[in-house]
Amino acid sequence: MPKIANDLETFLTQHQSRIEEELFDFLRIPSVSAQPAHNADTRAAAEWVKRSLEQAGLAATIHETPGHPVVVGEWRGAGSRAPTVLVYGHYDVQPAEPLDLWTSPPFEPQVRDGRIYARGSVDDKGQLFLHIKALEAHLQTRSILPCNVVVIAEGEEEVGSENLEAFVERERKLLAANAVVISDSSMFAEGMPSILSSLRGLSYFQIDVQGPSGDLHSGMYGGAVVNPATALARIIASMHDENGHVAIEGFYDDVSPFPDKVIAGMRELPHTDAQFAREIGVTSLGGEKGFTTLEKLWTRPTCEVNGMLSGYTGDGAKTVLPAKAMAKVSCRLVPNQDPAKIARLFEAHVKKFTPDGVTVKVSYVHGGRPWRADLSGPIFDAARRALHAAFGRDPVIVGEGGSIPVVGDFQRILDAPVLLVGFGLPGENAHAPDEWMSVENFRVGTKAMAALWDEYAGKGAS
Amino acid sequence: MPKIANDLETFLTQHQSRIEEELFDFLRIPSVSAQPAHNADTRAAAEWVKRSLEQAGLAATIHETPGHPVVVGEWRGAGSRAPTVLVYGHYDVQPAEPLDLWTSPPFEPQVRDGRIYARGSVDDKGQLFLHIKALEAHLQTRSILPCNVVVIAEGEEEVGSENLEAFVERERKLLAANAVVISDSSMFAEGMPSILSSLRGLSYFQIDVQGPSGDLHSGMYGGAVVNPATALARIIASMHDENGHVAIEGFYDDVSPFPDKVIAGMRELPHTDAQFAREIGVTSLGGEKGFTTLEKLWTRPTCEVNGMLSGYTGDGAKTVLPAKAMAKVSCRLVPNQDPAKIARLFEAHVKKFTPDGVTVKVSYVHGGRPWRADLSGPIFDAARRALHAAFGRDPVIVGEGGSIPVVGDFQRILDAPVLLVGFGLPGENAHAPDEWMSVENFRVGTKAMAALWDEYAGKGAS
Repeated sequence: MPKIANDLETFLTQHQSRIEEELFDFLRIPSVSAQPAHNADTRAAAEWVKRSLEQAGLAATIHETPGHPVVVGEWRGAGSRAPTVLVYGHYDVQPAEPLDLWTSPPFEPQVRDGRIYARGSVDDKGQLFLHIKALEAHLQTRSILPCNVVVIAEGEEEVGSENLEAFVERERKLLAANAVVISDSSMFAEGMPSILSSLRGLSYFQIDVQGPSGDLHSGMYGGAVVNPATALARIIASMHDENGHVAIEGFYDDVSPFPDKVIAGMRELPHTDAQFAREIGVTSLGGEKGFTTLEKLWTRPTCEVNGMLSGYTGDGAKTVLPAKAMAKVSCRLVPNQDPAKIARLFEAHVKKFTPDGVTVKVSYVHGGRPWRADLSGPIFDAARRALHAAFGRDPVIVGEGGSIPVVGDFQRILDAPVLLVGFGLPGENAHAPDEWMSVENFRVGTKAMAALWDEYAGKGAS
Repeated sequence: MPKIANDLETFLTQHQSRIEEELFDFLRIPSVSAQPAHNADTRAAAEWVKRSLEQAGLAATIHETPGHPVVVGEWRGAGSRAPTVLVYGHYDVQPAEPLDLWTSPPFEPQVRDGRIYARGSVDDKGQLFLHIKALEAHLQTRSILPCNVVVIAEGEEEVGSENLEAFVERERKLLAANAVVISDSSMFAEGMPSILSSLRGLSYFQIDVQGPSGDLHSGMYGGAVVNPATALARIIASMHDENGHVAIEGFYDDVSPFPDKVIAGMRELPHTDAQFAREIGVTSLGGEKGFTTLEKLWTRPTCEVNGMLSGYTGDGAKTVLPAKAMAKVSCRLVPNQDPAKIARLFEAHVKKFTPDGVTVKVSYVHGGRPWRADLSGPIFDAARRALHAAFGRDPVIVGEGGSIPVVGDFQRILDAPVLLVGFGLPGENAHAPDEWMSVENFRVGTKAMAALWDEYAGKGAS
């Protein structure tokens, strides 16, 4: 039975309060990368990460990009013949709006019922930070790590990692690694450590429909003018058929089915639709007919409205025929769909369904490729053992419906396998009000990631 | 040839600057009845109207209602055997949002190119005020009017005149009249005085679609949950067929066709679709196939989206699956559609097209009956002569696509014909940014309405 080395376990237990206070400091920085008003905060978070890496015992540098900076920490004391592992995380967070739906303010972390509530607690500050603390445990107790480690923390994950691919390309020597480790995902259930075998990709769009040059009186003009809100609604309605399949021509052409074995594994996971529906507060589920819920979430592409705005939305009634209507729509993609190709199909579909009398603009906001792991090799073996050591059981292999656009980039540019091991939990509200991370998962996750380095070097305790 | 009496003409010309300064004072009061934050302003506008009526020589009173107050002015010096005419207008205005689309601030009136730009300039403060000044011209020059006059000004027209019907019912003795005159509409074109023969009615709704209990991450949940924004878009899309007809079952059942003569008159009016489209800034028009544009606007019912909101609508991208989606939708109605029956049909339609997995609430915000005039009798004859006197030509008979919910109420409760004679112009942005009223129409309209009283008493000059 693998177990965590005593010195690491002791260090992390003894320093628990300090570590959690530091995490709270990190969570207090409103590093919302999507909102220019928070640019200074986003930079402050980068600087905070740099100091935290240095405190752990790594050499750290802030690298400028055309957007938010990238922070890189290095410890290369294991020598050039030892393997190197790259740890990736992100210090930026989703917008916190709507603010009035938070129980406690998003940037004033609060522990309630064993959960740390704050924007970024689980996505991804908490999970980035636990890696830094796992490294600190090694370097503070032993002054050494069993392999070379490079940590890269970006500030644009929530806005599509626009500058990261170019950065990784340019700095491929600095970032060269035998394996990549990322914690930005969730466990399948409490107490059930999980390794991710796939991620969905993304193509995110904004549709702007323009009708008359100004808002019109809906009485004086209604009935003779194409209403941009109605036109947009009809465009959106055209995107799915009656069975929930995406109706964009060619959308499924490049979808490569998941291996039967992976699908079979999904069916063994403890999941019931009734429980899932209860957790999110709906009476029944939706989506494509002919697939189980986990298949829909992990193996099937989607087309979802993320936002919609037109006309008067305030108190009371305003009889206006709006001049324009806007929607944000994104497609989740699965192997081997290509975000750029999906963008072309999406735009063609929108134009095809746009009536005369309005004009439409489709903006491609950002995208990322889908990804599938092959789950073999030293880093996966080490992860299985380290998770067992910390959680007392073997990890399950799961899919993930979300996107981490850089995973495919790392694999391709660095030619290294990527291990995705996350410590979130279902219902954590990652992109919604009242985001939380389990205190227990933060603590046990830190220990597991400390154990990972010993296991990777073949030096795990047992 | 009818003409305006010299004393009235002279008075209005000499007092022109003062009158326009007073109008600007009125326009500076942001009496937005829909917005509770403006409740004090709305009351201030009522008090302003009371003082203005008193200054003109009428006795005026503010009457409380459960909502915004009603102002009544009376001059009964013509004696109980003389006829009485009721003049109606409203002192409340539409919300001014979006503020950034105004060239000059909505509540700081400014004259540019012969137009008074301000929220409420034409709808309806300018048109209510010109009646008060026409009465002042009589009472200041002659100390007498040729008939009894009651002026009623309400503060809830833009929110559906919720309390007016009950007020008119209760105060039917105070308001008893042989005819009702309302100026809250537009002329068909510049220099072309117009009498309205019909108004559309209204049923205004808010649709709230509720999906999951909170916003969800569109990656982690997308594809397995019914998206409330998509559900709402499909509901809205279901409201029209491919030919622009409203697809709500039973919607057209009670529509009574307009007389052939009225339709024929419409076809003689100077209208081209190309010009109309150019004015509102679209390349082509829309609406129901098989009808001319003026028929669509004046004789056909509609179903138009007035506003739509869901999910994230700020800067950048947020990958959220929204918990809810909202739309404001209103139907314009024609004789003999009944707003309450349309509300039942509308709600049934929305429920029929709401998928499992979301819940829907349809709120009936307000409504009003459609109306058609028979255009005969002394008040109509007087109006034709007065308009000729002021504008130098006979009025045209036109329809109006907008709604003035109280017109039908006045006709029914007071058993009096209603004359609708308005001085707005096409493109006046009544419910949009940069609302304006023509300075010329304000001046000539005041003179026409001063002449109306002489003509109604058979004392017009010629």
